[in-house]
Amino acid sequence: MTQTVLESKTKTHIIGFDRPFTVIGERINPTGRKKLAAEMKEYNFETVEKDALAQVAAGAHMLDVNAGIPLADEPDILAKTIKLVQGLTDVPLCIDSSIVEALERGLEAYEGRPLLNSVTGEEERLEVVLPLVKKYNCAVVGISNDETGISEDPDVRFEVAKKIVERAQDFGIKPCDVVIDPLVMPVGALGNAGVGALNLIRRLHDELKVNTTCGASNLSFGLPNRHGLNGAFLSMAVGAGMTSAIMNPLHEPEMHAIWGADVVAGHDKDCAAWIRRFREPAAEGEEGARGARGERRRRRPAA
Amino acid sequence: MTQTVLESKTKTHIIGFDRPFTVIGERINPTGRKKLAAEMKEYNFETVEKDALAQVAAGAHMLDVNAGIPLADEPDILAKTIKLVQGLTDVPLCIDSSIVEALERGLEAYEGRPLLNSVTGEEERLEVVLPLVKKYNCAVVGISNDETGISEDPDVRFEVAKKIVERAQDFGIKPCDVVIDPLVMPVGALGNAGVGALNLIRRLHDELKVNTTCGASNLSFGLPNRHGLNGAFLSMAVGAGMTSAIMNPLHEPEMHAIWGADVVAGHDKDCAAWIRRFREPAAEGEEGARGARGERRRRRPAA
Repeated sequence: MTQTVLESKTKTHIIGFDRPFTVIGERINPTGRKKLAAEMKEYNFETVEKDALAQVAAGAHMLDVNAGIPLADEPDILAKTIKLVQGLTDVPLCIDSSIVEALERGLEAYEGRPLLNSVTGEEERLEVVLPLVKKYNCAVVGISNDETGISEDPDVRFEVAKKIVERAQDFGIKPCDVVIDPLVMPVGALGNAGVGALNLIRRLHDELKVNTTCGASNLSFGLPNRHGLNGAFLSMAVGAGMTSAIMNPLHEPEMHAIWGADVVAGHDKDCAAWIRRFREPAAEGEEGARGARGERRRRRPAA
Repeated sequence: MTQTVLESKTKTHIIGFDRPFTVIGERINPTGRKKLAAEMKEYNFETVEKDALAQVAAGAHMLDVNAGIPLADEPDILAKTIKLVQGLTDVPLCIDSSIVEALERGLEAYEGRPLLNSVTGEEERLEVVLPLVKKYNCAVVGISNDETGISEDPDVRFEVAKKIVERAQDFGIKPCDVVIDPLVMPVGALGNAGVGALNLIRRLHDELKVNTTCGASNLSFGLPNRHGLNGAFLSMAVGAGMTSAIMNPLHEPEMHAIWGADVVAGHDKDCAAWIRRFREPAAEGEEGARGARGERRRRRPAA
């Protein structure tokens, strides 16, 4: 069974077949977040700190860290953000940049075995990013587009994914250390985007036998009730074999859809996590018994 | 593409591959509902009427009607309930009884082409129910258990389903008129019940090419947050090819999970139903534009 092993200084997390779905928190990313971008540019990490802690508390197994701010020193800010977040939480990180120098600075700063986000199927990217993955012995997200762009044909995207895995092997990187992003398209614009993504995820799982990830909210772009639609997609994606997503763990509909899918898929042994998360609080008469499980006790403000 | 055609006096509904998932309302069933059982026994159909209208308003495409009340004249009550419900709504019905005489009285009373619920793989049931299906030219739910009970092995349940379809053909009933219930087991008791059900649904869709249905809430029996878990299961079941469920349409998490899965599976053309259901009400400034689409205008009581 495919396993991608990620590490922080003190903690190991495995993305893998037959395991609970891995939630990679997406919030530490200034794209589209003016306040965060302004803060990070000034090396003010107040919001980063809050986002890191809140995402882990909500159930994120890993955190994506991106510092893509126009006209800022992205490599330096990314390195400092990584150091800061590693000081705050013990979950492994995903080092996210489109700038190779920033990826390298992030790798230098990171303690442990991160997930590098990302390489594409473009020759130029493969040639510069894969040596970094090998040098730092980390894992990498492989995005299934190449020089020709993002194909609307899932079969073409499969071939790009396959090329990335093969090229990684040429550099001595194992397939289990390549996590493929099949590129989920908005179903509002492309009616067969959902079916195409699910079939591709299944092929990546069954044929290429790699772990997968995606931006979970792309599918619902432009449609109402995005959380509801993302939740349905995530449950179905787990059913098709997807093993992780880069997403907002503060959104309950999506998290419940994933946790439920873990139960259905048999990835939540004895339904233990589901029961722990959703067990009803004890009735009044059971107060004593509940009190014994200290941390589960419901606290009410004094009347 | 497999299509099961059901009819009321005035309306046709098709359960089918590549169509929106069919919701069969389960509420008109006195099992476990003391008040409803007491009412129906006295031919008081007040609750039946409310349940029929509420389920259709909530999005049920069909209604299951069951009159299984101990020490009551089930065949007569079932026939009268069917006549009453057909007078109230135009959705096709599912005639539900474990008593053959009640099924026959229901069929006599029904106007249109109903779904008969059910036959099993037991020889004795096949021999008496299938001739009724043929005589009344209706469709039938085939439950995948036989004389040996309900097998925990999905492969055995597949073979039972196959036998039902083949025996139906011996009686001149087409496979498209057999809707298989794969029998979903509680995942809290049987850890691989979810995976087993999904694999079986996929085989029934891909190999036997039949429509499928199930009691959607069985899976979550005994676990907390049943609606959340049912929703995840239903989305995944749609992804695996399930085409209908007997369920409570008044439960929003389950309905949203189905509607979302219809979008992802490409069964909601242009996402039209999803957009209609969840479109945001207009902002104040757009009042005029929204007003032009009369029926979508949000009505507020005067301040």
